[in-house]
Amino acid sequence: MIVCAGSIAFDTTNTPFRRVERALGGSASYFGVSASFFTKTSLVSAVGEDFPQPEWNALSKHCDLQAVEKLKGKTFFFESTFDFDMQNRTLNKLDRGVFEKHSWAVPQSLKTPDFLFLNTHEPAFNQKVFGQVEAKMVFTDVIEYLTKTQKPFLQKFLKKTGGFILNDAEARILTGETNLIKAGKKIRLMGPEIVVVKKGEHGGLLFYDGEVFPFPAFPLEDAVDPTGAGDAFAGGFVGWLDKQKNINEKTLREACYYGTVMASFCVEAFGLDNLFSLNQAKIKVRLQEYERLSGLHP
Amino acid sequence: MIVCAGSIAFDTTNTPFRRVERALGGSASYFGVSASFFTKTSLVSAVGEDFPQPEWNALSKHCDLQAVEKLKGKTFFFESTFDFDMQNRTLNKLDRGVFEKHSWAVPQSLKTPDFLFLNTHEPAFNQKVFGQVEAKMVFTDVIEYLTKTQKPFLQKFLKKTGGFILNDAEARILTGETNLIKAGKKIRLMGPEIVVVKKGEHGGLLFYDGEVFPFPAFPLEDAVDPTGAGDAFAGGFVGWLDKQKNINEKTLREACYYGTVMASFCVEAFGLDNLFSLNQAKIKVRLQEYERLSGLHP
Repeated sequence: MIVCAGSIAFDTTNTPFRRVERALGGSASYFGVSASFFTKTSLVSAVGEDFPQPEWNALSKHCDLQAVEKLKGKTFFFESTFDFDMQNRTLNKLDRGVFEKHSWAVPQSLKTPDFLFLNTHEPAFNQKVFGQVEAKMVFTDVIEYLTKTQKPFLQKFLKKTGGFILNDAEARILTGETNLIKAGKKIRLMGPEIVVVKKGEHGGLLFYDGEVFPFPAFPLEDAVDPTGAGDAFAGGFVGWLDKQKNINEKTLREACYYGTVMASFCVEAFGLDNLFSLNQAKIKVRLQEYERLSGLHP
Repeated sequence: MIVCAGSIAFDTTNTPFRRVERALGGSASYFGVSASFFTKTSLVSAVGEDFPQPEWNALSKHCDLQAVEKLKGKTFFFESTFDFDMQNRTLNKLDRGVFEKHSWAVPQSLKTPDFLFLNTHEPAFNQKVFGQVEAKMVFTDVIEYLTKTQKPFLQKFLKKTGGFILNDAEARILTGETNLIKAGKKIRLMGPEIVVVKKGEHGGLLFYDGEVFPFPAFPLEDAVDPTGAGDAFAGGFVGWLDKQKNINEKTLREACYYGTVMASFCVEAFGLDNLFSLNQAKIKVRLQEYERLSGLHP
C-alpha cells in the first residue's frame, strides 16, 4: 500500500500547440491514478470549496481519498508554459490556495504504509507528513524551482529518503555536475539508495547498488502535454515496486519500464484524460511493445 | 569493404575544462579508425604539406590511404567550442585549406566497395565522390551548419542515399519537426531506408522498416571531448554492417550497439588517442558491459 502526499490542483497549461485551462491535475492526482493500476494508493492532500464533484468522483474511483480534506478557500492552481521542445517549462502563476492553511494530518489507518511517496511539493509540507508516517520505504520527488530555492533543506531531507526521483535539470542544479552519471552517483551519496533521473523524451537513468541502468523513453509521435508525465512515471515505478516481494536490480528495471509506459500514456492527452481511461490490457500491450522495441535483441 | 570520403583535419577544441590545439582529427579520420576494427576501410581525402609523418603513419596503420592526396597548401583546420553541456558546439573558425582545390578523384580499385560513406562535409564534395563510385549501399552523415545553409541540396542528395546518420538538432532543422520520432520518419520519406538520429549523451534512435529502435548511450562519467563521437559511432555502425551477410532489424540493432561502444571510447580522451589504442578485447568487454546495463532483463 502506498500513501502519497502532494497536490491536487487545477492546471492551466500552454504548449506551442494548445492552451488548456483549469484541468484537473496536481502531482498527487497524477501519481495516484498511475499507481492505482498496480496497488492500493491513498492520497494525503486538500482541495477547496471550488473542487467539483465529478472530478472528486473520478479521482476516488482510483485512489482512497479519506485523507484529502475539503477546506474553505481555493484549490491549488498552477499555470505553466512549455517551450517548443515540449520539455522546458516556465512557471507563470502559482496560487497555494488551501495549502496555505492545510494541516497535512495523516489518519491513523495510513500511518504504516509500505511506501510513502512525497510528491513534488514544498519540502516543509513533505516534512509534516514525513513526521507522522512510519513507512518501509520513503520516496521523494522534487520540482525544479525548489532545487534552486530550497537546496540546503532538500539535502538534509534526502538523508531520510530511500528513493529519489527527479529530472535531469534538477539533478544538475542539485549537484553542480553537468554529467548526469556523476550527478546521479553524487545524489546517492546524499542518502537515497535508489535514484532515478528522468530525461523526458530521452528516457532516464536508474542508479542503484553502484550500477547505472539507462532506459529509453517509449517512442511517441504525439506527445501533446508533458504535464504530469514525471508523476505518472513515479506512480508506475513505485506502484510496481509495491507489488514485488523484493527490491533488486530486476524489479527496479521492471519498475523503470512500467514507469515509462505510464508516462507515455500520460503525455498522449491533455491532463488526466488518458490515465483515467486506461486498463490492465492496454498497459500490458504497451509494455510488451516497449520491451520489443528496446534492448539489443529484437 | 568501405570507402569513406571526408576530411582529415587539425582540430582545435575548447571545452569548459580544457583547450587542445591542432589535434589530428577530421570526420574521415574518426570514421576510418573506428570502422577499421571491423572491416577494411579506405579513405578518400587530402592533406597539406604541413601534415606530419607520425600522424600519417598512425592513420595508415588503421586505414588504406592510397586515395588520400598530399597537396600543396594547408591541411583542413576546424576550431570549435563546446558549451558546458558538452553537446552544443559553436564553430569558431574553418579553413578549407587543400580542399579548395582537391579533385576528389577515386582510384579504380576503390570504385565498387560494399559501402560508400560520405562523411560530414560539403555536399558538393560528396557529390563528386558519389558520381565515381558504385557501392552496394551509400551512407551519408551531415553537420549542423550544412542543414541550415544547404537544405535543398541535401534533400535532393538524400534521394540517392540508403542510410543517413545525423544528430537530433540536424533532424529538427531538416524537417521542421520538434518531435524526433516524427522527424526520423519524415527523413525516411526523403529517401534513406535506414535513418539513425544520434542524441549524444542520450543515445539514439534507429528508424528502419516502419519501426523505431531507441538505444541509450553507454553511461560514462568522464566524457572529456565529444569531437568525433558521431563519426566514431558511424564507423562502428557501418563497420559492423559490412561484416554481416544481411541488413535487417537484428544486424542494425547490433550496429547501433557497436556504434555506441566506439563513440564511448572516442569521448573518453581528446582527439583520436583512445581509438588509436583500442583492441578487439576492449571492444568486446565494453559491448558486453553495455548489453548487461541495458534492456529490461539484467
